[in-house]
Amino acid sequence: MKTITREDVLVPAGVPENMKEEYISNYLNMTKNTGKLMLFAGDQKIEHLNDDFYGEGIPLDDATPEHLFKIASKAKIGTFATQLGLIARYGKKYSDINYLVKMNSKTHLVKTNQRDPISKALVSIEDIVEFKKNSGLNIAGVGYTIYIGSEFESEMLVEASKIIYEAHKNGLVVVLWIYPRGKAVKDEGDPHLIAGATGVGACLGADFVKVNYPKCENPAEVFKEAILAAGETKVICAGGSSIDPKAFLQMLYDQIHISGAGGNATGRNIHQKTLKEAVNLCNAIYAITVEGKTVEEAWEIYNK
Amino acid sequence: MKTITREDVLVPAGVPENMKEEYISNYLNMTKNTGKLMLFAGDQKIEHLNDDFYGEGIPLDDATPEHLFKIASKAKIGTFATQLGLIARYGKKYSDINYLVKMNSKTHLVKTNQRDPISKALVSIEDIVEFKKNSGLNIAGVGYTIYIGSEFESEMLVEASKIIYEAHKNGLVVVLWIYPRGKAVKDEGDPHLIAGATGVGACLGADFVKVNYPKCENPAEVFKEAILAAGETKVICAGGSSIDPKAFLQMLYDQIHISGAGGNATGRNIHQKTLKEAVNLCNAIYAITVEGKTVEEAWEIYNK
Amino acid sequence: MKTITREDVLVPAGVPENMKEEYISNYLNMTKNTGKLMLFAGDQKIEHLNDDFYGEGIPLDDATPEHLFKIASKAKIGTFATQLGLIARYGKKYSDINYLVKMNSKTHLVKTNQRDPISKALVSIEDIVEFKKNSGLNIAGVGYTIYIGSEFESEMLVEASKIIYEAHKNGLVVVLWIYPRGKAVKDEGDPHLIAGATGVGACLGADFVKVNYPKCENPAEVFKEAILAAGETKVICAGGSSIDPKAFLQMLYDQIHISGAGGNATGRNIHQKTLKEAVNLCNAIYAITVEGKTVEEAWEIYNK
Amino acid sequence: MKTITREDVLVPAGVPENMKEEYISNYLNMTKNTGKLMLFAGDQKIEHLNDDFYGEGIPLDDATPEHLFKIASKAKIGTFATQLGLIARYGKKYSDINYLVKMNSKTHLVKTNQRDPISKALVSIEDIVEFKKNSGLNIAGVGYTIYIGSEFESEMLVEASKIIYEAHKNGLVVVLWIYPRGKAVKDEGDPHLIAGATGVGACLGADFVKVNYPKCENPAEVFKEAILAAGETKVICAGGSSIDPKAFLQMLYDQIHISGAGGNATGRNIHQKTLKEAVNLCNAIYAITVEGKTVEEAWEIYNK
Amino acid sequence: MKTITREDVLVPAGVPENMKEEYISNYLNMTKNTGKLMLFAGDQKIEHLNDDFYGEGIPLDDATPEHLFKIASKAKIGTFATQLGLIARYGKKYSDINYLVKMNSKTHLVKTNQRDPISKALVSIEDIVEFKKNSGLNIAGVGYTIYIGSEFESEMLVEASKIIYEAHKNGLVVVLWIYPRGKAVKDEGDPHLIAGATGVGACLGADFVKVNYPKCENPAEVFKEAILAAGETKVICAGGSSIDPKAFLQMLYDQIHISGAGGNATGRNIHQKTLKEAVNLCNAIYAITVEGKTVEEAWEIYNK
Repeated sequence: MKTITREDVLVPAGVPENMKEEYISNYLNMTKNTGKLMLFAGDQKIEHLNDDFYGEGIPLDDATPEHLFKIASKAKIGTFATQLGLIARYGKKYSDINYLVKMNSKTHLVKTNQRDPISKALVSIEDIVEFKKNSGLNIAGVGYTIYIGSEFESEMLVEASKIIYEAHKNGLVVVLWIYPRGKAVKDEGDPHLIAGATGVGACLGADFVKVNYPKCENPAEVFKEAILAAGETKVICAGGSSIDPKAFLQMLYDQIHISGAGGNATGRNIHQKTLKEAVNLCNAIYAITVEGKTVEEAWEIYNK
Repeated sequence: MKTITREDVLVPAGVPENMKEEYISNYLNMTKNTGKLMLFAGDQKIEHLNDDFYGEGIPLDDATPEHLFKIASKAKIGTFATQLGLIARYGKKYSDINYLVKMNSKTHLVKTNQRDPISKALVSIEDIVEFKKNSGLNIAGVGYTIYIGSEFESEMLVEASKIIYEAHKNGLVVVLWIYPRGKAVKDEGDPHLIAGATGVGACLGADFVKVNYPKCENPAEVFKEAILAAGETKVICAGGSSIDPKAFLQMLYDQIHISGAGGNATGRNIHQKTLKEAVNLCNAIYAITVEGKTVEEAWEIYNK
Repeated sequence: MKTITREDVLVPAGVPENMKEEYISNYLNMTKNTGKLMLFAGDQKIEHLNDDFYGEGIPLDDATPEHLFKIASKAKIGTFATQLGLIARYGKKYSDINYLVKMNSKTHLVKTNQRDPISKALVSIEDIVEFKKNSGLNIAGVGYTIYIGSEFESEMLVEASKIIYEAHKNGLVVVLWIYPRGKAVKDEGDPHLIAGATGVGACLGADFVKVNYPKCENPAEVFKEAILAAGETKVICAGGSSIDPKAFLQMLYDQIHISGAGGNATGRNIHQKTLKEAVNLCNAIYAITVEGKTVEEAWEIYNK
Repeated sequence: MKTITREDVLVPAGVPENMKEEYISNYLNMTKNTGKLMLFAGDQKIEHLNDDFYGEGIPLDDATPEHLFKIASKAKIGTFATQLGLIARYGKKYSDINYLVKMNSKTHLVKTNQRDPISKALVSIEDIVEFKKNSGLNIAGVGYTIYIGSEFESEMLVEASKIIYEAHKNGLVVVLWIYPRGKAVKDEGDPHLIAGATGVGACLGADFVKVNYPKCENPAEVFKEAILAAGETKVICAGGSSIDPKAFLQMLYDQIHISGAGGNATGRNIHQKTLKEAVNLCNAIYAITVEGKTVEEAWEIYNK
Repeated sequence: MKTITREDVLVPAGVPENMKEEYISNYLNMTKNTGKLMLFAGDQKIEHLNDDFYGEGIPLDDATPEHLFKIASKAKIGTFATQLGLIARYGKKYSDINYLVKMNSKTHLVKTNQRDPISKALVSIEDIVEFKKNSGLNIAGVGYTIYIGSEFESEMLVEASKIIYEAHKNGLVVVLWIYPRGKAVKDEGDPHLIAGATGVGACLGADFVKVNYPKCENPAEVFKEAILAAGETKVICAGGSSIDPKAFLQMLYDQIHISGAGGNATGRNIHQKTLKEAVNLCNAIYAITVEGKTVEEAWEIYNK
């Protein structure tokens, strides 16, 4: 990808003068000076409990949380997203990683047909800024999930909005995860609804908004609606459950080069592999997302 | 319209001495020294998700949020209302616009028959005042929606009241959106109920209250009840879904010249057009609202 | 009525030393040095929306909120109770009025069979004290409504209690409106239940408690239970919907001279009249309540 | 009862050094240097509205709240528990009384089969400490009710815990009222459940816990379980509805001398009498609780 | 067990520089310089009311809370966990005990089929730090229970996360109790779900996470999944209801030596015995957990 300069970074208008350089540095750091984000998502130990980490078809490497840190440390990534508590325990050993604090999480135990989803912030921006100072760790951004269409949507919209405002005041980059979910949502994969979600991300002032890739014919074309709706907010796609690596790389390539996505966020596809394979896949994703490589080139990297 | 002077502006009694000039300036700025408000409403990307911006009959210009800013920048308007997050991303590029921060928003996914509507403030007045200082942007006012008749009415009445008090203390002008909505509301368009809504706006101390125009025979006459009920609070009408431009202009004219409305608030009728048409319609609405032109004169402006 | 002196005023024990003179002045001011309160209630534009102000049998004078201020300004009254927002818009023009800020209000749209009533404070005592200073207006007291028997009773009891404590700390007089209401309340007009309500007012430390007059045989006698239950807290009766003026005056007279009420609170009976009639009725009520006149004397005043 | 000294008082470990003497003085004052508490409970005007104060079999003396203060002033008691608002109105006239502020109260209108009970604090410890200073009144302790088994139990446990911690920090003694109540509670009078309640009081750090006396065969013996479960927290029994005075005195005697109770809390049995009888009964209860008299001796005092 | 040094202690990254020595001291103190925790759990007087303390098969020693303190004082333990209120009453007499404040508790009266469980913090970390200073007691850590799968899971996840962050800032060690519970949870003893719970503990940054031991064939092997999922967070098992002491000791041994547990948390198995037996069992558990003894050696200690 083309390298961008400090001047190319769109600094949100709420960032105070004395935090602009910090924001620009964090933004360039997370996107490796390209404006494209390769996010390694590792927040599933709360979101999906141990289902993503242990069981048939998952190598034993993935059974312990250190696996995530090993991958993030050895592979090329933009940022590694996980909960602050986990960073508190492994961060000093893996102090080279570029962290993004995933601020809220819920388990998947209560299903939507029982009660609409709600997920609240486990820590505050103030905590994160203090933690960053006390730990000396490299925390460039924060993440937060909103379930639009939930009966508790209002609580999450409010919390997300305040987090974005406070994060920007402190020079941190914000990635919103936005998923339509709740009894009122008939089709979570509806491309038009997903475009609604990216628009919400834009209205809240997020730097990046992570959504699910539409499930439909010709998704790369259809997904353009969501990219347009987000405007100056960059859209990245959730990786979803593990699929064939080559098809996965092709999908990421199309998201960027056809739809116009600003990167991607991959979790299970990466960590549900042995350390070696996981590192290779990270590097392959990074090659497409940040280094401007083709699918074939990335595929070679994966098979090294 | 007749020009008003600084002395003509009714400064709410809660505005402290050192903020009176600020309030007066904001008020005159928003109403272009006429006391009449032409508000361009652009908060639908949360309220209606992407339904208002993409699809059959909507030009592709409208698919991206920058369209709103382009219109607001090129056309004559009183103020442009949208969420703070969107202003944070586009504000510096369009720093000539007169902004009003729409403070709360909800999606339309959860319908009233599932759960009564609730919408909470995404930012505080304190945040907005700080943002204004940090960004240097021209923010003259704020907006907030209340759904009277909702089971959660109390939460919104309280939040609106506190916002008005704080906004006035900081010299900001307040526009309330008030809509009767909820399982208890049988007819949202009932003129008598709408007059109740404008009265609520008055009791909360709003400078302007935006309501839906009654759906009935001879609405301009019937609507007088609502204007009277609001007293010193000015009433402006929501534009609603897109209709024939000339009929639309006539309606706005009647609202002002027959009913006694203090302006209007138009969203979809403006932005669901190409940039050129949208700018022309803005100018036509502005001509009627602020410049005291006739419908024919405005119609010519629209067709330029 | 007999004039009382500063020494006669019961200052609540929580009023700090430096606020005692302020409290006494406010109390004497509101009761015109008699200890009897004639309260003109004007909070119905939220409570009943436009139903009390526009429609068959209501003169057009009442259609706009300024009517309330004109009456309060021209007539003899003890205090005029309305929402802070309305005072903010009309207060400077009618700066001679003795105001009481009605702190909470709800609409009547959601009925008890749908959901039990809840009404929360729209402003804080701190806001009111600051507003009083900034505006220079004469605000002697505050009011708050509690619905005992509502499932949300607890929220209102707590808020009322804290308001009373804070109001007294600032030298303000407090009037509680207490109505038994909710699915658990079979008969809102039960005299024994109303006596329970006045007792609650006493336990919360209110200066005055406004309740509905019992609907029963010989109400003036029966109502004595409620007066006794309130002890040192004065009881005033809500006026209710408009009735024949002479019967109304007789009722007020009996409440004071038979039951032992400490005054009255009248709204619709006053403002649902032309300005002249409304002023005359105020003066007649004032004559009975504050000036110790007979019903016949008051009736003459009304017919002037 | 045996006199105890300052050294005998168990000062909770959270009381800071500079408040220890204050705590000891309050404790000795409330228990008249015996460690045994005779509490006159007067919080029923909210809890039971006017049902306990007016009606068949209740003398007219009891119809007005001053009756409670007259009794508390003329009779021998340990402490008089009532709401702060009532103390604010009568406290200066009855400044000789030793007060305990009952911090939360609810009405009995909403029954458990409609909604589980909840009762929240009407004032804070900070308010009470300030009130004590401003009023100069003798406030030695505070009280709070928890309904264990209610769906809202958690809210009350949290509030009670924080109140106890804050009260102790300010040298105030705490009495918890704990009643099992809610749809989940089959038998509120189950002695084993009551022992659970006293244990909860101990875990929260209360100085005294007031529970209902078990309804069963040989209650004085059975009640020992509850006394043991409370450990260093003293147990006092609620008096309940009015019963025959001699049987009542015998019951109190047995609670102390058989079960090991730390006193008692009596309300209706006292105030539902003429002033003279009420004072005599107080003195008789005091004789048993504090002065170590026999039932016969107490009975004579009652009949004076 | 092998002795560990100050350098071996993993200090969470959020612990500020000036609190690191305090954290290390508390950690070593609680684990007796081994990193293995023997926790004596005494929070059941709220959790299970008096059911665990009085009745058939329970010696009378256990009927009063002092029994817990006597055991904790006379026996070898790592830490004694109970509510702050109880520590406030007995702490000064038993000032040699190493305390852990159990911060939240609920009763077992409301069952899951009525309403999902919720338990909120009764005190704050700020309170505990202040209490520790005022009392001079040795408080090394805090505990908190989360019910994942409850409809109120979010409230507890948030509170736990904030407590951990604040506790670490103050050098305190944190033990989370995590139990899957609620209508959505079909099998609370499912080993895979328990591994999910320990993973949640890790993500929140707990030092120790206490879970129930799986109920299945060959639990010590199966439990390895949970140990792996917790990573650097140590896992300890709840003791559950009283069972045969020798089988119990064998189970604890297997948890440590087969599964890899970091200790255990025992309550009823200890205190539902006479003081002598309870002390012996504590010492036997301690022998296995901290002193590296065999089951036979521990069994001898128990039978002394």
